[in-house]
Amino acid sequence: MKKLNFASDYMEGAHPLLLLKLMETNLKKTVGYGDDEYCSDAEKKILRACNCPNGSVHFLVGGTQTNATVLAAVLKSYEGVIAVETGHVNTHEAGAIELTGHKVFALPHNLGKLEAAKLRKFIQTFLDDENKDHMVHPGAVYISQPTEYGTLYSKSELEEIYSICKVFGIKLYVDGARLAYALASPENDVSLSDLAANCDIFYIGGTKCGALFGEAVVLPDKHMIPDFFPIIKQHGACLAKGRLHGIQFGTLFENDLYMRIGKPAIESAIKLQNMLLEKGYQLFYHSPTNQVFVVIENDKMESLSEKVIYEYSEKYDDTHTVIRFCTSWASDPKEIDILADML
Amino acid sequence: MKKLNFASDYMEGAHPLLLLKLMETNLKKTVGYGDDEYCSDAEKKILRACNCPNGSVHFLVGGTQTNATVLAAVLKSYEGVIAVETGHVNTHEAGAIELTGHKVFALPHNLGKLEAAKLRKFIQTFLDDENKDHMVHPGAVYISQPTEYGTLYSKSELEEIYSICKVFGIKLYVDGARLAYALASPENDVSLSDLAANCDIFYIGGTKCGALFGEAVVLPDKHMIPDFFPIIKQHGACLAKGRLHGIQFGTLFENDLYMRIGKPAIESAIKLQNMLLEKGYQLFYHSPTNQVFVVIENDKMESLSEKVIYEYSEKYDDTHTVIRFCTSWASDPKEIDILADML
Amino acid sequence: MKKLNFASDYMEGAHPLLLLKLMETNLKKTVGYGDDEYCSDAEKKILRACNCPNGSVHFLVGGTQTNATVLAAVLKSYEGVIAVETGHVNTHEAGAIELTGHKVFALPHNLGKLEAAKLRKFIQTFLDDENKDHMVHPGAVYISQPTEYGTLYSKSELEEIYSICKVFGIKLYVDGARLAYALASPENDVSLSDLAANCDIFYIGGTKCGALFGEAVVLPDKHMIPDFFPIIKQHGACLAKGRLHGIQFGTLFENDLYMRIGKPAIESAIKLQNMLLEKGYQLFYHSPTNQVFVVIENDKMESLSEKVIYEYSEKYDDTHTVIRFCTSWASDPKEIDILADML
Amino acid sequence: MKKLNFASDYMEGAHPLLLLKLMETNLKKTVGYGDDEYCSDAEKKILRACNCPNGSVHFLVGGTQTNATVLAAVLKSYEGVIAVETGHVNTHEAGAIELTGHKVFALPHNLGKLEAAKLRKFIQTFLDDENKDHMVHPGAVYISQPTEYGTLYSKSELEEIYSICKVFGIKLYVDGARLAYALASPENDVSLSDLAANCDIFYIGGTKCGALFGEAVVLPDKHMIPDFFPIIKQHGACLAKGRLHGIQFGTLFENDLYMRIGKPAIESAIKLQNMLLEKGYQLFYHSPTNQVFVVIENDKMESLSEKVIYEYSEKYDDTHTVIRFCTSWASDPKEIDILADML
Repeated sequence: MKKLNFASDYMEGAHPLLLLKLMETNLKKTVGYGDDEYCSDAEKKILRACNCPNGSVHFLVGGTQTNATVLAAVLKSYEGVIAVETGHVNTHEAGAIELTGHKVFALPHNLGKLEAAKLRKFIQTFLDDENKDHMVHPGAVYISQPTEYGTLYSKSELEEIYSICKVFGIKLYVDGARLAYALASPENDVSLSDLAANCDIFYIGGTKCGALFGEAVVLPDKHMIPDFFPIIKQHGACLAKGRLHGIQFGTLFENDLYMRIGKPAIESAIKLQNMLLEKGYQLFYHSPTNQVFVVIENDKMESLSEKVIYEYSEKYDDTHTVIRFCTSWASDPKEIDILADML
Repeated sequence: MKKLNFASDYMEGAHPLLLLKLMETNLKKTVGYGDDEYCSDAEKKILRACNCPNGSVHFLVGGTQTNATVLAAVLKSYEGVIAVETGHVNTHEAGAIELTGHKVFALPHNLGKLEAAKLRKFIQTFLDDENKDHMVHPGAVYISQPTEYGTLYSKSELEEIYSICKVFGIKLYVDGARLAYALASPENDVSLSDLAANCDIFYIGGTKCGALFGEAVVLPDKHMIPDFFPIIKQHGACLAKGRLHGIQFGTLFENDLYMRIGKPAIESAIKLQNMLLEKGYQLFYHSPTNQVFVVIENDKMESLSEKVIYEYSEKYDDTHTVIRFCTSWASDPKEIDILADML
Repeated sequence: MKKLNFASDYMEGAHPLLLLKLMETNLKKTVGYGDDEYCSDAEKKILRACNCPNGSVHFLVGGTQTNATVLAAVLKSYEGVIAVETGHVNTHEAGAIELTGHKVFALPHNLGKLEAAKLRKFIQTFLDDENKDHMVHPGAVYISQPTEYGTLYSKSELEEIYSICKVFGIKLYVDGARLAYALASPENDVSLSDLAANCDIFYIGGTKCGALFGEAVVLPDKHMIPDFFPIIKQHGACLAKGRLHGIQFGTLFENDLYMRIGKPAIESAIKLQNMLLEKGYQLFYHSPTNQVFVVIENDKMESLSEKVIYEYSEKYDDTHTVIRFCTSWASDPKEIDILADML
Repeated sequence: MKKLNFASDYMEGAHPLLLLKLMETNLKKTVGYGDDEYCSDAEKKILRACNCPNGSVHFLVGGTQTNATVLAAVLKSYEGVIAVETGHVNTHEAGAIELTGHKVFALPHNLGKLEAAKLRKFIQTFLDDENKDHMVHPGAVYISQPTEYGTLYSKSELEEIYSICKVFGIKLYVDGARLAYALASPENDVSLSDLAANCDIFYIGGTKCGALFGEAVVLPDKHMIPDFFPIIKQHGACLAKGRLHGIQFGTLFENDLYMRIGKPAIESAIKLQNMLLEKGYQLFYHSPTNQVFVVIENDKMESLSEKVIYEYSEKYDDTHTVIRFCTSWASDPKEIDILADML
């Protein structure tokens, strides 16, 4: 029997509408490097959706590349970026941030989230230090929405973090690799406009949200990063056939597809959590988005692994492990019924 | 009237067979980051085509990224790479090589090619210098096949360069961004196997040769770069949906498509050159591949630009300019007839 | 009245014997960059004192420079260095390590020391992680002897850390910026030979131990870092008049001066601690070397600051602060009597 | 018989007055890192000598370090520095500039000097290039006074270069490693004030001009580089006992010592050139400063090397070599008489 697969949200190709559009446009000739009409159209749609008419949109290929390029563009050489210790930039980018010369300050997290009080204290402690000129200066804050734990910042939490950043003259950058899953969550109260109004840079994830690849970096104020193009190019992050970004994001932002594309994932994740609770499984915590973390006895985990593909997350205690089930835009809630029968 | 467009070889999407395969496989689930069966299959096909059973293949997204990542992987910190002054790494990568900490030594070129004698002399001069420990050490040689001028290294030229590299313990890296156009040229005598046998690393270009994107780095000896994966990841060059590389390159190397895909480009380029000569235009030099360089009076260039899109190459003299016509896998030789009528 | 000054151990020039030797040799002509006879002589003496006849010694100017250069020389691009969170490389080098592209993994400390169990667990957790190829690899361990808190690793602690490093194929690097104060401490059981036998690289501090400047990097096995010279040069760490290192370290290692030079500092620090305890002050902890940390009420601190120069260390609680008194090779124990009268 | 030594200008220790001052101040206690009164005094004297009351002075240890740190501080990530191909940053710094991520554009030289016309043309060609966003942008110009060939920019040449820089918004940085020898040359018409008025940053060399070590970076406008201190620190270029810089440069700028310190070198170099010409030797060109380049038959060079230490410069032709004789602040013109007797 074929295993059910909840390993991640980048296991398939692209949403059919995107692929269709790639087919339709395939032999049209355009200029390269994002100067084509598809990119221009996608940028307009995204800025409208984000309600930031003076912004700009820049398309990059993948998440690690985007994080490294954006942070290198905004940080001075002696500045570092603040993140939670579980932040993607701190853990799973093989040192891409450090490769560009910058330190990641790792603060404790609360279910993947950065707490405003801890952020304020960290910056204040730095400012109070008599040796601060011998220290890396905090120059940016990195958070992701949703977080690595699938949790969400509320609008008021985001506003508080951004107000701290502004007070201290530090940039706020939001990684939206899975942003569609936040936008599709009934528990989310941060719209695209809210996000654009409450940070300095963010990116709208394509790779994990139905595109073949691609991340759309939004600068709510286009003057935020002068000369971004050569910086992107220098980081090897510039796609020759930039149109592929435009075509995909143009489709994702047509008829609000991006707002809806995460819904099957959320529906499945809710159904999955309810089912697991009914079966007596222990959730690590309630998840509002498409990543479900379960505490499971090691024995049970073994037998489960014969039927289902999940991802190891972390050790819980000597006899239990935290594992992750990830749903996606391509999920079918019926899979949860099949899984229920299996368990 | 619509202009004819000879601006470059990355103006369209992908060869239809690749797109078809992307459609067919779209909803199959695979693991990410290149550990899927499509990548494994494509690697096998490529190694077979290159006749290097102990090699390995690593897929990256674009050319600049590939050059920077490969060179950073093979160079020691105090080593630089030798290229001709017109080499892509020296001119058109916005400093991507230097960003990784390495100097590009720029040697004079002969129609885009590095001459073995100049290479030998450069290295010998370095070795003879009493201050060489205060100097950047030459650690790799970068050439491209075809070159930026569309010219080709002959097999014996390649062998000579590689033998110099081996004598001095320097790596030879060949950029094959447009390799399909070399392979399709009647003037080419360097097969994929010849290339694999005469350099330390090379890449087979996808982006300019019919793929949506993607470059396949071939290590004829897979032990050449240990731990290449984290290096690729650290450079932001790792595609989450690595399968997209596998699917595209698997198709390009099925039924020798990659050997044939450049033929329409070459056919068009030959026809174009003959036609231009007949019309009295001056070729900058005879081109064996898909880039045709023409010396044109500035006045004529102006009027031409109303009908045809070409690329500015360089100033020839005060009244003439060198312009480039680029054909591609998607070219139709009939376009040359239309162009002939226009001129 | 002139304030007593316990701010640090680099407030004076050099030990008189070093300055004398600089005078005597001043107008002799030598070659530059460390190829002179003084450097050669100093290297021999140091290797003899360290009992590592197959080692080599490389002179750099300052501590931050030395740490950054050595770690860049031994780490692969995707590797990071493990240190305690209070380690100099993690806190007080303005990001010099990250500037060279490497992450500092910050582990919790125990009075400034890295605990073997925490180190082993950290490395094991990394090795067990299924995503480790997406993570920075631990490539080196950084400790200092004495630590930033003036505490000392015992010989058995050092041996345990080094055995862990060897098991996992990770380099151990010991920062000896204040090594003379360890060597002069009655509580120290790690000789120079012990140190050389229990790490891969270490440096013998000059700047804080009686030299005008200079740190002597010792490779117990000289093959440890091939081509170290161009790496040092590239990092701007190569002194033109390298002889100044040789003259100073040659003097420091003549008649065991380096073994004795820290004694006045230790004598003063012991006397200072006893006096403070007698006066009812609370030591943060007992210090075996030349840095004495005192917990003091904020009010008392204010009045103390009118008579004595100390260094702020950290906040203890809302009404208390930890301050540091630092003695040096130039200290006169009589200063402690004067201080006692003041308090 | 002892050989005469004309190898370089950093073969001795320091000018006796500097060493004396180091002795006198040796046991005074000061704060570290350049915040002491000696540095403050030296800064004032230097700014007065340069006639730039709104400037600032920053002391670094050596030339390569200074060049790399200054250029990293002023260049944006995608910018490079223009130098002549013989420029120190291009040849003899083991890639220190590239290590910080920046390209060195190497232009042809005229006896070591950058020609204004070539500079203007290079920048204009870049600006005219349609692909310039794929290219490294020229962000700074590096020249040295005197040059690597010992030649001098005239005031009008310097003014012309600076005016080009200003037109194009590019920084002009002048390396003054051997500036004292320019200032002492009868052929020099560029005073310290002229220099300060005609560039954005320069440094006054100490290492080769009578100090033990040290280079004084002058910003004629102190706002030119904000936050220079943490940048210096991050580059490992910050001396703990910063006072050593202050004491040495304070002495060099007392009673105009720096203006006079190069005179013995110049006197010796003139005498040497005249003597060589009289003896029938061929000068490579007339040198206005302390580096004398001679074209010599290879056989003659061999026999000369038994009596005199000189430095190999470059191959002239198959039977001749260019060698360099370097005089210094410590030279005694009588040595030239001894040399004359030898020849």
